[in-house]
Amino acid sequence: MHPKDRPYLSLKNRDLFPLCILCGEKNLTLSSLMHSFEQLSEQFSKHFKHRHFPLQPASLYDANEYFLNVGGKRVRPVLCLMGNELFDDIKPDAWEVATAIELFHNFTLIHDDIMDKAPLRRGVETVHKKYGESTAILAGDVMQVAAYEHINRIQITFIHQVLALFNNTAKEVCEGQQMDMDFEKQETVGHEEYLKMIELKTSVLLAASLKMGAILGGAGERNQKLTYEFGRKLGLAFQVQDDYLDAFGDPDKFGKQVGGDIISNKKTFLLIHALETASSAQKKELNRIIKGNHSDKVEKVLQLFRDCKVDDWAIKLKNNFLDEAFTHLEDIAVVSVRKQPLKDLAQFLVQREH
Amino acid sequence: MHPKDRPYLSLKNRDLFPLCILCGEKNLTLSSLMHSFEQLSEQFSKHFKHRHFPLQPASLYDANEYFLNVGGKRVRPVLCLMGNELFDDIKPDAWEVATAIELFHNFTLIHDDIMDKAPLRRGVETVHKKYGESTAILAGDVMQVAAYEHINRIQITFIHQVLALFNNTAKEVCEGQQMDMDFEKQETVGHEEYLKMIELKTSVLLAASLKMGAILGGAGERNQKLTYEFGRKLGLAFQVQDDYLDAFGDPDKFGKQVGGDIISNKKTFLLIHALETASSAQKKELNRIIKGNHSDKVEKVLQLFRDCKVDDWAIKLKNNFLDEAFTHLEDIAVVSVRKQPLKDLAQFLVQREH
Repeated sequence: MHPKDRPYLSLKNRDLFPLCILCGEKNLTLSSLMHSFEQLSEQFSKHFKHRHFPLQPASLYDANEYFLNVGGKRVRPVLCLMGNELFDDIKPDAWEVATAIELFHNFTLIHDDIMDKAPLRRGVETVHKKYGESTAILAGDVMQVAAYEHINRIQITFIHQVLALFNNTAKEVCEGQQMDMDFEKQETVGHEEYLKMIELKTSVLLAASLKMGAILGGAGERNQKLTYEFGRKLGLAFQVQDDYLDAFGDPDKFGKQVGGDIISNKKTFLLIHALETASSAQKKELNRIIKGNHSDKVEKVLQLFRDCKVDDWAIKLKNNFLDEAFTHLEDIAVVSVRKQPLKDLAQFLVQREH
Repeated sequence: MHPKDRPYLSLKNRDLFPLCILCGEKNLTLSSLMHSFEQLSEQFSKHFKHRHFPLQPASLYDANEYFLNVGGKRVRPVLCLMGNELFDDIKPDAWEVATAIELFHNFTLIHDDIMDKAPLRRGVETVHKKYGESTAILAGDVMQVAAYEHINRIQITFIHQVLALFNNTAKEVCEGQQMDMDFEKQETVGHEEYLKMIELKTSVLLAASLKMGAILGGAGERNQKLTYEFGRKLGLAFQVQDDYLDAFGDPDKFGKQVGGDIISNKKTFLLIHALETASSAQKKELNRIIKGNHSDKVEKVLQLFRDCKVDDWAIKLKNNFLDEAFTHLEDIAVVSVRKQPLKDLAQFLVQREH
């Protein structure tokens, strides 16, 4: 097996003298020993694919196992591994924290689905739909505890710092979800408060995943902070792209119905910006269309978005966030070859068309 | 202020030479420097009475503050303090863990109330009734995180052990709640499985609270274990007493309607034992009465309970658990005067008539 395929690959001393620790081959460069998102995603999926909960009571734990087996892209845990490898070989602790992060993320999804009354997630029934709401609440609760069990397995020297960041992030994610629910009831939402909500609900967990990896990889305080900021800005760019694709994505590539956000009157970067910059006549028209439910609603809203140049604005906004993210990545004090996998991932995430 | 009234009272070296650290008075005995449940309860209530969450988003954190302000007996955190003082002066860490325990307990109450669709708790509206179910789910989630924040404030030397016990207990409490919900749907429940459910839902948190205190008080492994077992058996005795009072309590002293469990067909120690030991004619009659809803339901069930001698059996069962608890307490290797507050508390809890 080539060392690239081993999760606990040791790169020690090979920044200077790259050689394969298994076969001794000297032709390898550091960059060929770094792991891409895809490689780590595959490795993490293997690592994560086992029973996480006891057999009994089955009425509770079957729900957890069911949901974890549905799968997912495992972006957050892989960011933790990449945050670690940005500075040093991936440590066993990083696999524990990555597992904790993925369990935490799944706990939030289970509870969010209850709140959103969502019948489906990743194409299959949600936990509350399949097992009932009470069990879904408990399944989420116990999954959160399981996340903390993995945090408790890391070396004692890191535990205070990692636990503090984990707790802080967990609280912020809850705050973001509450803001999101509040926005549904609000008549209008401003750009700044939407940004704050997205930051809490989405960005901080991506940023914290990277930073926890960085901590475990031995990064200093400044590098940790820059890694976090890279993740935070990347998360914002990602969300702008998400909102953009839902409206302006290529239907053949997008994979789901374009205009879903428009139909459900979701407040997005696009709608908020349109309402903030439209002329009073356009604003009146936009509000009229939104409140109605005509068959040409999506088409008409998109036309108004184009009239207000919301599409160009969104691309600029995304690129601004991406540029800021890259600036932070540039400022991190490690050899640039170590940054390549994160650069590639960032480009992929925000240039994706689906 | 007398040292008894100070939460961080130092007893160091005064087991042998009791004297007041403030006034130097030498007449004090160790027993007069130990704290009773009532004293610690008052001190903890003061300690806990402050804002625990940020101001924003108010739509989330107001729900948490509302629920924490409703009050409660604070039994579990005080057990943590008492578990500490059983072995040594109460340490600052014990106040952190006690706070974590109380926050965790309140989180479970908020979520349990959603699952039980309870409109009232401690005489006031439940969180989901007042703030809606989604906010109640999130309020519980974020309160659980807040509990972990306090765990993270203790000395690094204790954190692995305390966190492991805390996590394990949290999972067990969730399992107990799931079993309780499962029992509602089951036709029959056996004594052993009811005991297991009570142990998980109620006893383990009492036991763990004491043990966490013991750990922080410097107890050795054997003493920690005995402290835990004392709490576990005490919890079981407490629950038997609870079930007993609901059926056979003095209506003038009980404070709420006697027979509430019978009216709602709750499976209790009493009903389960009656169904397991009744003659086949009595069993048939009991099942008939339970399934009906006649005005004399309580009276008739109580008569059948008496015919089966369930009342005497329950008192014996409670006393057995209490005796076992006291045996564990006796076996703990500290001077007996240190055990007195826990002895007094145990006697009070299981001899109460309300």
